Amino acid sequence: MKRLFLIVAMLCVGVVSLSAQQNLWQGEGLKSPEVNADGSVTFRFFAPSAESVKVTGDFLPEVKLRWEHGEAMVAGEAELERGENGVWEFRSEPLKSELYFYSFIVDGMRDVRDPSNIYMMRDVGSQMNYFIVPGERGNLYSARNVKHGTLSRVWCPAGGVERRMVVYTPAGYESSSERYPVLYLLHGMGGDEEAWVATGRVTEIMDNLIAEGKAEPMIVVMTNGCTKHRSAPGFSGEGMWRPYMSGSMDGSFEKMFPSIVEWVDKTYRTVSRKSSRAIAGLSMGGFHSMQISKENPQMFDYVGLFSAAVFRGDSSVSAVYDDFERKLKKQFAAKPKLYWIAIGKTDFLYEENVRFRELLYENEYPYIYVESEGGHIWRNWRVYLSQFVPLLFK
Amino acid sequence: MKRLFLIVAMLCVGVVSLSAQQNLWQGEGLKSPEVNADGSVTFRFFAPSAESVKVTGDFLPEVKLRWEHGEAMVAGEAELERGENGVWEFRSEPLKSELYFYSFIVDGMRDVRDPSNIYMMRDVGSQMNYFIVPGERGNLYSARNVKHGTLSRVWCPAGGVERRMVVYTPAGYESSSERYPVLYLLHGMGGDEEAWVATGRVTEIMDNLIAEGKAEPMIVVMTNGCTKHRSAPGFSGEGMWRPYMSGSMDGSFEKMFPSIVEWVDKTYRTVSRKSSRAIAGLSMGGFHSMQISKENPQMFDYVGLFSAAVFRGDSSVSAVYDDFERKLKKQFAAKPKLYWIAIGKTDFLYEENVRFRELLYENEYPYIYVESEGGHIWRNWRVYLSQFVPLLFK
Repeated sequence: MKRLFLIVAMLCVGVVSLSAQQNLWQGEGLKSPEVNADGSVTFRFFAPSAESVKVTGDFLPEVKLRWEHGEAMVAGEAELERGENGVWEFRSEPLKSELYFYSFIVDGMRDVRDPSNIYMMRDVGSQMNYFIVPGERGNLYSARNVKHGTLSRVWCPAGGVERRMVVYTPAGYESSSERYPVLYLLHGMGGDEEAWVATGRVTEIMDNLIAEGKAEPMIVVMTNGCTKHRSAPGFSGEGMWRPYMSGSMDGSFEKMFPSIVEWVDKTYRTVSRKSSRAIAGLSMGGFHSMQISKENPQMFDYVGLFSAAVFRGDSSVSAVYDDFERKLKKQFAAKPKLYWIAIGKTDFLYEENVRFRELLYENEYPYIYVESEGGHIWRNWRVYLSQFVPLLFK
Repeated sequence: MKRLFLIVAMLCVGVVSLSAQQNLWQGEGLKSPEVNADGSVTFRFFAPSAESVKVTGDFLPEVKLRWEHGEAMVAGEAELERGENGVWEFRSEPLKSELYFYSFIVDGMRDVRDPSNIYMMRDVGSQMNYFIVPGERGNLYSARNVKHGTLSRVWCPAGGVERRMVVYTPAGYESSSERYPVLYLLHGMGGDEEAWVATGRVTEIMDNLIAEGKAEPMIVVMTNGCTKHRSAPGFSGEGMWRPYMSGSMDGSFEKMFPSIVEWVDKTYRTVSRKSSRAIAGLSMGGFHSMQISKENPQMFDYVGLFSAAVFRGDSSVSAVYDDFERKLKKQFAAKPKLYWIAIGKTDFLYEENVRFRELLYENEYPYIYVESEGGHIWRNWRVYLSQFVPLLFK
């Protein structure tokens, strides 16, 4: 019997490390995080000789951090309590339904991941554990028993090289001959074509909204807005680099964008007209959305600026940034159906957005404005996406 | 200037944790792992109050582990040395070109990931850091400046439900009207449709072999061979479960397989005939490949059994496992072009494979046999795939 168990266990692939082996023998091992019935969450961490174990994450109240460069609101910390057998534990307050990130701090070591939790996502240069508290938001961000769309990693020629993109096609795309509208969805500085999929939960949000009849079936195209890279780290011949503050605010991405739209229209069954095209982005991606839609006033009927860096751009760097007000006038003369702006009250770009809205208001350019709590955080961007998408292509 | 720096830094998305913030300010921070010019690798880990930091991984010589259930070869360990500023360091011997996994052990805590390395892959219930040492193998497993295929996560109706699959289509698929042969590539027990992509480096291997003219352009279909799940963890409405020894050796996967082939032939531009179809798998996936190809003697001209669990199956559980020898006879009467078997000398399935090859030999069923060093490990499976794929569809 032991021999059979051994064989079955060893069929489990990839047991390259001692600890992975032991995980197999210990069954599921520690359960962490455990979402309790009341919405509280229990974290467990095995550290027999540690003197202090804390957990930090966006499920805890933010605290203000001051340091040499300034100050910022950052995630709070909570102490785990040492229990039996070297297992430390912390139970949170009941949490609102959401997707949350966390990591442990062990004797001053930060960024310690939870070995009991395989659910991780990369955001810029960090790998983070996450969990979901069920409920309205959490369910929207979870895979459910609905029809699922296809998610493809494709290569699109743009700016003289092949560049990687992620494309969502809605359920039924493969089996129909229908044409679909397209949402171009752009990431922020430091991000890449994987950001909206990983941290933004695009696949789950789109599948769920479409299945509930709250959004039209549509194609979502996620590009890489950092033109010096061809892809997210590790997927092209640039070696295994570590992402940092990479971005492009030099006009190069805006200039190559029409060739991306052209390729998408050629490669997918799109409805190739203004009324069936939307562009939206967060932070630097909001900057890009604003600039690209202004540079191409006949291209997009729907524009979404999520916590956008609504700067005019440096016209000494690129002609894309020349004549901001004249081009904006031309864009609004073409009467886009929706110009949608959302930002959190504590976002460091809040004032910049106030000024931009003043400009729109003074010129009688119609826009919709949504103000939320919180700052420059993914939680807000998932919400904005969920609010924006149902307004498209109606 | 500080203000501008602050704004630029804050444009970097998703800085939800204090440590992520600090990573931004510290620039690239610690470099770990660093692959040196001589092929040695330097690991660095920040742990100011730790008393012991070790690294373990498949780049270190294996050691024998004995415990209550038996014994196994597992990855060795090496001590890091405490340096200045709380940074520990270890430099390995020069390593052969390969892709390697590793994790840290800090004061007895296992499975500690490297916060300086964003490159991680999940294998069954473990998230592991990895690095690549350049050279022949390492380059084959790396994204390079070649034409890239598309990788799609799609949903295929099979066995009454939609099941998730990963499909690789070669470069040029979207822009041509050509039809392509198909390799069905199956994972082992505990694995899922993501296993060959993550740990098996399929995208990189296929892109590189095709670009070098060593393999025919082909479609690669990676299914989920655990029929009680619809997808890898987290991608369907089954909640956020933790993978363990999940698998299907009850005939259910074999029975649904023809409907998968039918759907693939309908959905993709395939060459729908035996001479343009291959099936291969590792461990339990080798078992599935053996069984499915035997159940459908007119379906596959190419069969690859990588460290395969070449058991006959339990015919009291499913009729799929009835009449093993008669069905095998029928399969070989249909003259498959290639029946390819590979296994490592220390694999725990080695003896089982000896017996299976004896059966083939006695019946004069032609097969190719490749014996390698090592055991039941991903390093071997990547090599086997790289050896098998160039033999297909010639």
